[in-house]
Amino acid sequence: MASIKPSLVKGTRDFSPAEMEKRNFIFNTLKRVFRKYGYNEIQTPSFENLSTLTGKYGEEGDRLIFKILNSGDYLSKASAELLAEKNSLKLVPQISEKALRYDLTVPFARYVVMHQNDIAFPFKRFQIQPVWRADKPQRGRYREFFQCDVDVVGSDSLLNEAEFVLIYHEALLDLGLRDFNIKLNNRKILSGIAEVIGKPELIVDMTVAIDKLDKIGLEGVNKELLDRGFVDADLEVLKPIILLSGSNTEKINSLKSVLANSEIGLKGLAEIEEVFAYLTKLGKGALLEHIVELDVTLARGLNYYTGCIFEVKTNEVQMGSIGGGGRYDDLTGMFGLKDMTGAGVSFGADRIYDVLEELNLFPESAAAQTKLLIINFDETIESYTLPLLQRLREAGIAVELYPKALKLKKQMGYADAKRIPYVLLVGEEEVQSGQLSLKNMQSGEQQKVSADRLLTLMA
Amino acid sequence: MASIKPSLVKGTRDFSPAEMEKRNFIFNTLKRVFRKYGYNEIQTPSFENLSTLTGKYGEEGDRLIFKILNSGDYLSKASAELLAEKNSLKLVPQISEKALRYDLTVPFARYVVMHQNDIAFPFKRFQIQPVWRADKPQRGRYREFFQCDVDVVGSDSLLNEAEFVLIYHEALLDLGLRDFNIKLNNRKILSGIAEVIGKPELIVDMTVAIDKLDKIGLEGVNKELLDRGFVDADLEVLKPIILLSGSNTEKINSLKSVLANSEIGLKGLAEIEEVFAYLTKLGKGALLEHIVELDVTLARGLNYYTGCIFEVKTNEVQMGSIGGGGRYDDLTGMFGLKDMTGAGVSFGADRIYDVLEELNLFPESAAAQTKLLIINFDETIESYTLPLLQRLREAGIAVELYPKALKLKKQMGYADAKRIPYVLLVGEEEVQSGQLSLKNMQSGEQQKVSADRLLTLMA
Repeated sequence: MASIKPSLVKGTRDFSPAEMEKRNFIFNTLKRVFRKYGYNEIQTPSFENLSTLTGKYGEEGDRLIFKILNSGDYLSKASAELLAEKNSLKLVPQISEKALRYDLTVPFARYVVMHQNDIAFPFKRFQIQPVWRADKPQRGRYREFFQCDVDVVGSDSLLNEAEFVLIYHEALLDLGLRDFNIKLNNRKILSGIAEVIGKPELIVDMTVAIDKLDKIGLEGVNKELLDRGFVDADLEVLKPIILLSGSNTEKINSLKSVLANSEIGLKGLAEIEEVFAYLTKLGKGALLEHIVELDVTLARGLNYYTGCIFEVKTNEVQMGSIGGGGRYDDLTGMFGLKDMTGAGVSFGADRIYDVLEELNLFPESAAAQTKLLIINFDETIESYTLPLLQRLREAGIAVELYPKALKLKKQMGYADAKRIPYVLLVGEEEVQSGQLSLKNMQSGEQQKVSADRLLTLMA
Repeated sequence: MASIKPSLVKGTRDFSPAEMEKRNFIFNTLKRVFRKYGYNEIQTPSFENLSTLTGKYGEEGDRLIFKILNSGDYLSKASAELLAEKNSLKLVPQISEKALRYDLTVPFARYVVMHQNDIAFPFKRFQIQPVWRADKPQRGRYREFFQCDVDVVGSDSLLNEAEFVLIYHEALLDLGLRDFNIKLNNRKILSGIAEVIGKPELIVDMTVAIDKLDKIGLEGVNKELLDRGFVDADLEVLKPIILLSGSNTEKINSLKSVLANSEIGLKGLAEIEEVFAYLTKLGKGALLEHIVELDVTLARGLNYYTGCIFEVKTNEVQMGSIGGGGRYDDLTGMFGLKDMTGAGVSFGADRIYDVLEELNLFPESAAAQTKLLIINFDETIESYTLPLLQRLREAGIAVELYPKALKLKKQMGYADAKRIPYVLLVGEEEVQSGQLSLKNMQSGEQQKVSADRLLTLMA
């Protein structure tokens, strides 16, 4: 076998033990919270039929889907003409039937439709799996990354939306974050605004523009609105909406008068009020004062959300949104199952990882780690320590005996590298006295302990 | 969007909440045991450079690797000649640079070589991830399945082999299995036997034949040995070896005389004896009587194992091996890093799943499940139950309020389908008295409890 210098595919990552520990801290925290709110885990296959995925993400999305080459003599049925003209695009369906999933939403919709007769609705599921996109890799953008989605389908109750707020709040607190905002909007409010202006057909242009307020300021937004077909009179109507400030109640009251003549706009406001009322009844009204914020400039995923829209931002470090979601009224329509309303949110695990790293919020030693390393002095003492090794394991303690009597420095270095918090030194003297030397690797302190005492200390 | 009836790619599977719970029971059990023995988790990307994978699994293996089509205008640089002659095989490297991993071993070797300067050896890692093979799907054989590998590299100590026996033993017991065998052999013993017969070059033919003893019996093995170049005199020498019986000690003693003139054969025996001695010193000598079994007909993975070979079989149901592994002296040689010895074993998660299912060994209710469903009677009572809902969650209890006041039967059906063990019925009477009706869904028993008592009961 020729020896080649190995490398990773660009945009993909290895996760070392230390990184896995941190990633597992995030995933386990999220799973615990999801389960508490009645969401259960599912998994779908890494690849789907190409036809299941194409046409769901727009032209650009289709281009970014990784296609899998058919096995065997894949060219046998390919059109000689397409091959001759090297028509890459048109040849794809002839040589590829499968593709890696691009997100978790379309596979979830496929799952719901396929298993609709076995599912007890409302179906509350979470899913944490990698997805793949043939994007140009750059800092923070990977070709393989994990999505963490939590969705309910088959229930139009706004209790679900209120619970998503609680799920975000509880999960982010459990991860150690302290200052973040959960922003809420409603597609119907945006429709109402476009209606009031008399340009419902420009709703997308309007939201795309006002969504940029944070980045380009009011002047920039106004310029873009004019470019996109609005006139000065429209800007006058929009200005107080865009610059809406005050408490959530104040914002709702202002919007009520602006949207007084729009049925759909008032419906959107009523939905927001109902979500807020649920939070209050759940004993979480205090969240409405600082954490939860009505933000009508929020226009995430406007092409599929039909009700509430969520977005979460941390204020502790500079970072885009670390989560988002909303309600969609027709998730499964693409697969022929109509009127299945749903709502869901997702957590941006990679960004959350970076935030926790920057804030130094990962717990120092996860329970998963080896707790004790027994130093290997020589064969005779190795035999003495072996029963102790197994006794500790039987007590449920993660422990290792260094497998060879190498130099002490080498063995201590191993404990250091693996961040093992305790080291047990057993020499002839210790064998004689039965008093073993236990070293705390962080403080450097060393104490003599009996085997029984060691078990108690490590447990 | 055209509505298409969705389906799965053949050989792939969805995992429902109930199935995920069971799969997680297996994976969590394995992870807990791996960590106890000092193994830490890593993950590698789903796809690797095609060049990293090809040539590692033989011609048949190369054929079964799923290749990913290059993005964009992938045909632009393809040879017009190959396209014209529809040469599928030769065209692959021109239109595909990436491929889905075929196993966890080659990516692990790649990982060790790439990160060798950051790793504290011995490097003890486990890895539980899906792998993909373009195999013809059939019952029990999937195109996407999970491998669970646990390996140590950079240590030649036979303590590692002894610990793999303990890992198998502890993990399988924790999974609920009671009657299984951990079979051990050593490649060097097989080499010794071939040497004694004077046909070292036929070692592979010999082991392929005697490996079939279980299936085709001694007569069949003998026939195959003759077909493969052995003569009657060889069969006489092999017969007592193939039919070797008695305790492990008896087998070792017999082999010592058979292999008296083979240095390598005696080395293999000495290694087996050392593994057994480690088990005895670890206080697990009893395993050698019924669980651990020296089996010289075991010839798994002979082309890469160089020392001990493992295989695990359950005796409780009809099933192939549920685990196996061994020592390999040159894992990373394929990527230019020499003399890196390692040993590892794996668990066949899909087979273990089927075994536990058949034996009904999955725990009835995993902790992950929703514990309590609060029935939704009407809006007024919903408001009454909301603070209780959140209070239960704050005590760490997984609980749901049915999100709409549908018919009781429908709500109870939901609890049934989700196997929620308790249901809380709150009507006007309960609101008045503060005594809530708690129903045990399994026994059907119903009792009146206060909110405080409910918290205690559910905790």
